[in-house]
Amino acid sequence: MTSPSTPRIDADRLWKSLMDLAQVGATPKGGVRRIALTDQDRAGRDLVTQWFRDAGLQVRVDEVGNVFARRPGTDPAARAVATGSHIDTQPSGGKFDGNFGVMAGLEVMRTLNDQGIATRAPLEVAFWTNEEGTRFTPVMMGSGAFAGVFTAESVRAQKDADGLTVGDELQRIGYLGTQACGDVPGGPYAAYFESHIEQGPVLEAAGLPIGVVRGALGQQWYDVTVTGMDAHAGPTPMALRRDALLAASRMVDAVNRIALAEAPHGRGTVGHLQVLPNSRNVIPGQVTFTVDFRNLAQAGLDRMDADMRTTFAQLAAACQCTVDITQVVKYEPCLFDADCVASVRRAAEALGLPHMDVVSGAGHDAVYVNGVAPAGMIFVPCKDGISHNEIEDAQPEHIAAGANVLLLAMLERAQ
Amino acid sequence: MTSPSTPRIDADRLWKSLMDLAQVGATPKGGVRRIALTDQDRAGRDLVTQWFRDAGLQVRVDEVGNVFARRPGTDPAARAVATGSHIDTQPSGGKFDGNFGVMAGLEVMRTLNDQGIATRAPLEVAFWTNEEGTRFTPVMMGSGAFAGVFTAESVRAQKDADGLTVGDELQRIGYLGTQACGDVPGGPYAAYFESHIEQGPVLEAAGLPIGVVRGALGQQWYDVTVTGMDAHAGPTPMALRRDALLAASRMVDAVNRIALAEAPHGRGTVGHLQVLPNSRNVIPGQVTFTVDFRNLAQAGLDRMDADMRTTFAQLAAACQCTVDITQVVKYEPCLFDADCVASVRRAAEALGLPHMDVVSGAGHDAVYVNGVAPAGMIFVPCKDGISHNEIEDAQPEHIAAGANVLLLAMLERAQ
Repeated sequence: MTSPSTPRIDADRLWKSLMDLAQVGATPKGGVRRIALTDQDRAGRDLVTQWFRDAGLQVRVDEVGNVFARRPGTDPAARAVATGSHIDTQPSGGKFDGNFGVMAGLEVMRTLNDQGIATRAPLEVAFWTNEEGTRFTPVMMGSGAFAGVFTAESVRAQKDADGLTVGDELQRIGYLGTQACGDVPGGPYAAYFESHIEQGPVLEAAGLPIGVVRGALGQQWYDVTVTGMDAHAGPTPMALRRDALLAASRMVDAVNRIALAEAPHGRGTVGHLQVLPNSRNVIPGQVTFTVDFRNLAQAGLDRMDADMRTTFAQLAAACQCTVDITQVVKYEPCLFDADCVASVRRAAEALGLPHMDVVSGAGHDAVYVNGVAPAGMIFVPCKDGISHNEIEDAQPEHIAAGANVLLLAMLERAQ
Repeated sequence: MTSPSTPRIDADRLWKSLMDLAQVGATPKGGVRRIALTDQDRAGRDLVTQWFRDAGLQVRVDEVGNVFARRPGTDPAARAVATGSHIDTQPSGGKFDGNFGVMAGLEVMRTLNDQGIATRAPLEVAFWTNEEGTRFTPVMMGSGAFAGVFTAESVRAQKDADGLTVGDELQRIGYLGTQACGDVPGGPYAAYFESHIEQGPVLEAAGLPIGVVRGALGQQWYDVTVTGMDAHAGPTPMALRRDALLAASRMVDAVNRIALAEAPHGRGTVGHLQVLPNSRNVIPGQVTFTVDFRNLAQAGLDRMDADMRTTFAQLAAACQCTVDITQVVKYEPCLFDADCVASVRRAAEALGLPHMDVVSGAGHDAVYVNGVAPAGMIFVPCKDGISHNEIEDAQPEHIAAGANVLLLAMLERAQ
């Protein structure tokens, strides 16, 4: 039950901040283009940092451009409770991906200021450098460096397609800070929460405003090449064919079966497929395609990997083809901190907000932060599950609900 | 059994003619590039026409550039027995496709001259304009016009990618003749035989030098579009996907099953397939692909068409996708004249050459000629079944065997 004294964020102010931030790099189709470390990213960073300062927060920038804004607590010995996300976008991105999490954190600070609420532990809101990985690889660069997965030096040496480095671009836009990467004043975060649009269709399909995120799926990506033999479609009888596309097509179907066998968290996708020579009346001699497997447990990913290798070999042989499989990406599954997950669930219940446990199919900064601090996430629905798209959209009441859950979860951990 | 008096062609002379002709438009990789109505085609036409004249043949050119060379018979009232093929090539073509049939016909004439053999009926060897269809569509243009499938006027109006017409190019290279298309002095051909490399792997796999061609498969080609919905591979659970590639892959498998159900003559090929957006971690929202169905009976093609439409609709619906099917090409099946087929078979037997009945999976000039005269074909093996390729190859003894079968079949019909 909601207590009459439960504080609430200012939904209109939060929405206005999101819309104002979306003006920086706004696209004609209603989206946002604010690629990491460009002039647009600088303008977005400057605006948000000014809002942090206007809210009386103490701003720090670390050596890979991550920005942290602190609201002091009453206990000098207490470790901070933090939130954050990112404000860089895809080239044709939306208004909510990342931005919601940062604006929700800012709104929590503003709400506590307005209502004169002091917390025992300091609170922080952060935005992490280059979550999207569009211009500089890898994705989730800033939070990965914060968590010690990458060194600050290696991150700063990464180059874009024009040969410009992260370090040079941070310097140019004024965000090459001095704080050592991963250091937090007063010690590691006591807890970290990230609110985010779901970027998928589950909450919308269920008609629920809040997803309590239990973890993030591990990912294993592969490049596959099936080799047969080009031949004329007319003169070559079915029995004498070595049809690489027939074999590959059965592999696409197998990827789907393998994922369904790992319900509910197994996912298998062939997103890219290329046929050679790709001519109407020539039996394809070679097909290359990708496999993207995801699952919540490494044992599940291992089963999917083994099943794929056995099945692909059989399917290739049946078509007198050969198959080559190369693993190109591996992210281990992440289970968020049980206490943080429980805090999110309790906050939703305290607010009377219908909710369900979900998993994140995509990576988020919170996944890296979870390696160095207890972390959890709050999802809100987005329209048709669409993200990384200028038509990305979310309902104001869901945005407000997510920020209120963040407020209560942070307060619970900071008292 | 071969009678001691059975005439035989000169295998070495035939091979040398093939190799000499292959020097016109020779490519560095050992192939030939003699695209229809180019300067290379003119040079090839000039060389072969000179050889015709050197053999004492009477040369005619018709109004679409088909070239006919006649050896008179002893009976002025007898209709001619003819052979032929084409000397234009693919852009990266080989030495044998088409050229073998024309050189074999020339060698028949030379052999009869050498041995002083007169025939009751006149004999002709022809080469047909633009069989390959590489520069000007459609394929088999000259024989199609000869058979009345296209008008000479419509053929001459066809343009290449640069806007040059068949008529202008025929004029330019000196092969715009005056004989009315389809007219044959003395009346329609009594019989037409075409010898050709198989362009497939059947004879080689069977270890036989001669294929007695019973007919040519009919063809029905389609463009297919499967539409689902793009979505992120990570956050979208399997049950909420509308995966166009999953549906399309099952359709590729269905095309194979549908063709196998029409054994031995049914063939089904998906040669071209394109995925949108074709990104590793995005569930494909749209896939376009082609279907090439072939069969020896129209009833079989009708069954394949119906099975495809029912199956594709079910497979699309199962993936929450839609499917659109457009038929883009239709060639009816061809059964060659039973007497001509029997003549070919008898000739092989008279020569003691192992043979089998085969069907042509591809189109040939003989298929059109069969519409206006009794026709048949002789196939010889080609290496690995490969054609339309610079590495196209055939064994001299198979080339000689095919020409000897042609010689006896023509003699049988011309006496």
